[in-house]
Amino acid sequence: MTVGTEPKQDRSRATRRRLLDTTVRCLATHGWESATVGLIAAETGISRGAVQHHFPTREALIVAALRHMFDERMALLDAIAEPDPGHAGAERVHAIVSQIVDLMGGELFKAALQVWTAAAADADLRTTVVPLERHFGRAAHARVVRLLGVDDSDPQLRGLVQATLDLARGLALADVLTDDSRRRAWVVRAWSDRLADALEPS
Amino acid sequence: MTVGTEPKQDRSRATRRRLLDTTVRCLATHGWESATVGLIAAETGISRGAVQHHFPTREALIVAALRHMFDERMALLDAIAEPDPGHAGAERVHAIVSQIVDLMGGELFKAALQVWTAAAADADLRTTVVPLERHFGRAAHARVVRLLGVDDSDPQLRGLVQATLDLARGLALADVLTDDSRRRAWVVRAWSDRLADALEPS
Repeated sequence: MTVGTEPKQDRSRATRRRLLDTTVRCLATHGWESATVGLIAAETGISRGAVQHHFPTREALIVAALRHMFDERMALLDAIAEPDPGHAGAERVHAIVSQIVDLMGGELFKAALQVWTAAAADADLRTTVVPLERHFGRAAHARVVRLLGVDDSDPQLRGLVQATLDLARGLALADVLTDDSRRRAWVVRAWSDRLADALEPS
Repeated sequence: MTVGTEPKQDRSRATRRRLLDTTVRCLATHGWESATVGLIAAETGISRGAVQHHFPTREALIVAALRHMFDERMALLDAIAEPDPGHAGAERVHAIVSQIVDLMGGELFKAALQVWTAAAADADLRTTVVPLERHFGRAAHARVVRLLGVDDSDPQLRGLVQATLDLARGLALADVLTDDSRRRAWVVRAWSDRLADALEPS
């Protein structure tokens, strides 16, 4: 690498990253149909030509944004805090489940939902989406198993870890059209208590 | 009503119903963008003019289809079978949860998902969708409470009924891009066992 090209490459990488973040935000806020290259370029503050320099087609941009969302969600999984050792039993389980539910929702979910829904009617897009989702699903399962200290060879406990991830997905969906945060907090509490009970039968 | 007009009205009602069923199927199969009045007319086997006779705009047709999906889901709620009295405890809970999960998924979910996702970025559509969803959510909660024989004044048990509906929604979403039926059966079993435990502590 020659001196002088690096700053240019850094700038290019930074623009690419900004472009992908804006694509995620546009999908979440404006929806699939409205998240056009023109809108995304305008909201990133660059020209359409600059977008096309990074991604020749809208499809390429959307697929890159999908991989970007996947990377972000994987990083969030890694960043889940180990609960305070002072928290035991139900409190510990609640701290973990709350973080998983937060991670599975929010803007990343809203953007991903737009892509999944388009992929439901688009076989080509599905071939990109499905392996990423499978990979994320396995990583999320492994992370929850480790955080909860669950015996993953027990089919009942494996099933409850899966159910917790499905619950998180259902709660994320319930938050798309209205702010569901108050109901969600109460559901997460009820679920965590049952899960804690299953992990440490009294 | 004069003799002779009734058959015509019956035919009109039957066409309207067929049109709405086709709209639901088109949304579920072809997605939001592709489910145009032209496609829906062709798949119903009527002219675009005949569609416009019933619904002057695509928006009117989509909103009517949304109400139709709501009516269908309410009818499915009413049609949930009381479990065989021979089934007690976990078997009884499993029979009820399985039916709820089936009812919340399938083609009606896939079609509704297309509308919800569009509504996420469309405030006008949201004002139609949100009250229908709230109404359905309350009816589903009341039905599950009655079927399970839960004390609905207990906040923990209310939370678990809500969690069961959220789980069903999450499972429905997991089935949109791939056939998830095998995993789903195992997750439903694991959760039903926990729920049965909560309802009848040993």
